[in-house]
Amino acid sequence: MAYNLLKGKKGIIFGALNDKSIAWKVAERAWEEGATFTLSNTPVAIRYGELDELGKKTGSKIIPADATSLSDLNMLFEESMDFLGGKLDFILHSIGMSMNVRKGRTYDDLDYSYLQKTIDISAISFHKVLQTARKLNAINEWGSVVALSYVAAQRTLYRYNDMADAKAMLESVARSFGYIYGRDKKIRVNTISQSPTPTTAGSGVAGFDGLMDFTERMSPLGNATAEECADYCITLFSDLTRKVTMQNLFHDGGFSSMGMSLRAMNVYNRSLEIDENED
Amino acid sequence: MAYNLLKGKKGIIFGALNDKSIAWKVAERAWEEGATFTLSNTPVAIRYGELDELGKKTGSKIIPADATSLSDLNMLFEESMDFLGGKLDFILHSIGMSMNVRKGRTYDDLDYSYLQKTIDISAISFHKVLQTARKLNAINEWGSVVALSYVAAQRTLYRYNDMADAKAMLESVARSFGYIYGRDKKIRVNTISQSPTPTTAGSGVAGFDGLMDFTERMSPLGNATAEECADYCITLFSDLTRKVTMQNLFHDGGFSSMGMSLRAMNVYNRSLEIDENED
Amino acid sequence: MAYNLLKGKKGIIFGALNDKSIAWKVAERAWEEGATFTLSNTPVAIRYGELDELGKKTGSKIIPADATSLSDLNMLFEESMDFLGGKLDFILHSIGMSMNVRKGRTYDDLDYSYLQKTIDISAISFHKVLQTARKLNAINEWGSVVALSYVAAQRTLYRYNDMADAKAMLESVARSFGYIYGRDKKIRVNTISQSPTPTTAGSGVAGFDGLMDFTERMSPLGNATAEECADYCITLFSDLTRKVTMQNLFHDGGFSSMGMSLRAMNVYNRSLEIDENED
Amino acid sequence: MAYNLLKGKKGIIFGALNDKSIAWKVAERAWEEGATFTLSNTPVAIRYGELDELGKKTGSKIIPADATSLSDLNMLFEESMDFLGGKLDFILHSIGMSMNVRKGRTYDDLDYSYLQKTIDISAISFHKVLQTARKLNAINEWGSVVALSYVAAQRTLYRYNDMADAKAMLESVARSFGYIYGRDKKIRVNTISQSPTPTTAGSGVAGFDGLMDFTERMSPLGNATAEECADYCITLFSDLTRKVTMQNLFHDGGFSSMGMSLRAMNVYNRSLEIDENED
Repeated sequence: MAYNLLKGKKGIIFGALNDKSIAWKVAERAWEEGATFTLSNTPVAIRYGELDELGKKTGSKIIPADATSLSDLNMLFEESMDFLGGKLDFILHSIGMSMNVRKGRTYDDLDYSYLQKTIDISAISFHKVLQTARKLNAINEWGSVVALSYVAAQRTLYRYNDMADAKAMLESVARSFGYIYGRDKKIRVNTISQSPTPTTAGSGVAGFDGLMDFTERMSPLGNATAEECADYCITLFSDLTRKVTMQNLFHDGGFSSMGMSLRAMNVYNRSLEIDENED
Repeated sequence: MAYNLLKGKKGIIFGALNDKSIAWKVAERAWEEGATFTLSNTPVAIRYGELDELGKKTGSKIIPADATSLSDLNMLFEESMDFLGGKLDFILHSIGMSMNVRKGRTYDDLDYSYLQKTIDISAISFHKVLQTARKLNAINEWGSVVALSYVAAQRTLYRYNDMADAKAMLESVARSFGYIYGRDKKIRVNTISQSPTPTTAGSGVAGFDGLMDFTERMSPLGNATAEECADYCITLFSDLTRKVTMQNLFHDGGFSSMGMSLRAMNVYNRSLEIDENED
Repeated sequence: MAYNLLKGKKGIIFGALNDKSIAWKVAERAWEEGATFTLSNTPVAIRYGELDELGKKTGSKIIPADATSLSDLNMLFEESMDFLGGKLDFILHSIGMSMNVRKGRTYDDLDYSYLQKTIDISAISFHKVLQTARKLNAINEWGSVVALSYVAAQRTLYRYNDMADAKAMLESVARSFGYIYGRDKKIRVNTISQSPTPTTAGSGVAGFDGLMDFTERMSPLGNATAEECADYCITLFSDLTRKVTMQNLFHDGGFSSMGMSLRAMNVYNRSLEIDENED
Repeated sequence: MAYNLLKGKKGIIFGALNDKSIAWKVAERAWEEGATFTLSNTPVAIRYGELDELGKKTGSKIIPADATSLSDLNMLFEESMDFLGGKLDFILHSIGMSMNVRKGRTYDDLDYSYLQKTIDISAISFHKVLQTARKLNAINEWGSVVALSYVAAQRTLYRYNDMADAKAMLESVARSFGYIYGRDKKIRVNTISQSPTPTTAGSGVAGFDGLMDFTERMSPLGNATAEECADYCITLFSDLTRKVTMQNLFHDGGFSSMGMSLRAMNVYNRSLEIDENED
């Protein structure tokens, strides 16, 4: 169902890869709500992903860009404003990657050149997006910028590794830049802390299925899906949330406010009972 | 501007007094967005307020009820479902009062019978609303319940007094009941932590003007108004935020994430400079 | 091992029942560190507990008092200062009780007279202790007041029930009164959020063993014991923490900062694997 | 006054420059409490500082090391264990630097090579210290590691700039590594979030005096001094806080839990009144 919440609004959506991506769902929903936008990802991701299909469906231009490169970002913002015929109203940042995770380096055996890349790609890229937009004066007053985060920024989850530190920094960038961009241009900057989501990126983490089951049973409303996250993004891009800024907003079916649920405890206890029978 | 976000949805709005009330603004916006609802407040508030006008404008039934009375709440829910022709989809709880504040009792000289009333009216009433709704099975699946809170629940503001403790408990009730109501009925429960707002209730706090100026200059987007709060409530009542629950959501122009702003510091420093000149 | 950290300091310790109580351990450690103090609990608890033994060991006077009664508290403070020969330096508040938990009333079926008692005993009593001390000017400058709390104040644990709301309010009282008492008398007020501890009170919660196992495996250092909590209290009563105030301090082996540990996930996953084999 | 709290304990203290440094005060207090340790800083800081004096007073070896260099850190840990005659019990990390701040680059005009250095020096260095210690098995069971942080990690303060993001990441590193180090070796890792302190580093921030005055009046106990911070560190290095880990501990006279104090508001309001008189 559509409400015209983004009628006439223009944006850039970073990070769609295929139809499992949260950014993909955001693009579909933004389009349904009346927005026009460009889609950006790295050249490699565009080659291996299915972004063309999404571009056609939503009438969007696909612009390859490395979000860690200032010249790429400059080009992206210029081309986007050119294509859209004016300044932007919203941006989605859905970018993150850890070579330490990919290569199976544990957190007490990090490769520091990988760590630098994790931070550069997953956190500093968000600052670069904001600083580039600011210098080009590329966002309209009351525009809205959202980046996707994860509860690992507050609480340690084994194997989430250096992405936890990157997300903590990402959320800090949202606050730090949100202050300046709010004060000077009335633009809001927030992060959404989303449930674990079975995207191509998310599934890469070892032990992901068990964790998904645990968070599903811990969360009174269950894990939030990519589609539901897209709905939530729409509200944050709309004019109905103009005074929400510098926040990290949990979109997780209640997980972040849970200590222990009956449903998760039942699974856990069953395993304990087996112990006792075996002993 | 309206989007039909609440088309066909039914609700109860507690706490509207006059056109400065946040609850009043929520009622106006909910009506614009296609909702039908009843309005409730205490008999005294209804007598001295201007609720009739709002009821006529929005086609709502006004039902007097003391939100600390279980029998009143039962009657209210029954009459509301009767008037609206079915179960509810949303509830707004905008209720709070401290006799200690009114009577000028400082926090180290509380009257404990007043304190009990503060807690009963400002926090336990929210539990009573939820428990009554639950027992009557009065809310549809994926319904949404919101209560209004204030940052004093996390950080002490002089003179906010025992209302701080009441708001801390209110936010806890949202989490505690949100778990059960989410698990059993897919109903979400959240609080909005709103900027200081010059309502009839808010203005009662001594020194309110200076505080409003401070928070205005601390918040990069300025204080959030009652109208803006109403817009935000609409998003939380809509179907676009179904997986947001057990959260306290700051709607405050960024205040909650600020340590010190340039604009507030400039005012503060000017006063310090005067000191030095005088000395 | 003792360090003379509390040499010459005087205090009141509320809530010791038997040698499993955290308050009991605090009394033993405070005595070892050179403090003198009185011990207080309700007349009933004193009758059924073993406080006499503790009193003899530590040379303390046992003073029955209902911590919800202002006249009892007045008497207690007067008698304590009399017995100790001067004003106090520290207070431990380890008091909490829920009739809703005891009677098995679930959180969506609370008895509201029980709830009022939960709040009065578990949260407001802390305010009464502080207000009485303040009015009698019973605490020396740089004195330290600590109350025991639990992570349920921030995150919902099934069956912890209305104690979660009481702990949230308790922590708020620490902040609210900590502001006034710090500003006026240089006295600090904090709460310690302690691991689940197998005291007589703690064990009353149904499903306590499974929860203890879960938090043990989630916490990198394991659950904190009552003895360890007593050690931590000593540091907060000492002169080495004079500028720590209005804080809720987690003493829980790291639990509060964990999202998921490998050890807990292993137990959880084993249960899931059984499911698959059975299906 | 000394208590023998660190009798026989061995450590490394990073970041002492001169007698205004927090690390300097920690060294003095650790020495008084019976510890032996080495002192480390960059070669440049050692040349321009007064570390020799501190080394003589406390019988410590001074070991120059760049905390961003793995080979330097390896050498430092080896030499320290050699000098101290065994493994370590505590480490203090008091390291931070931003070229963006020094060069007056505002947060919306960051130099990204400077930002990378800020993160490397102020946050990643902490990971490198921990990873090096872990690989060398250089810390005894129940050892304690502390890094110094600032409330800017949670709340934006104008001009604190990219140090806010570095501190947010630093605190995340403490949690992430605290999980692993706790689970495997019973070693705790925490950060202390200290009041603004007039050290050589702190004073470099423009507008520091006004901010110090504001936080002094906002904090019920006033700003915490470097000496008081040293006392607090001692408790965290002692055996009395063994189950405190993965925490960010505010040592700030209550500032972090304040929304607005009467004393700060009085200064602020006086400036507003002048406005009105002038208008």
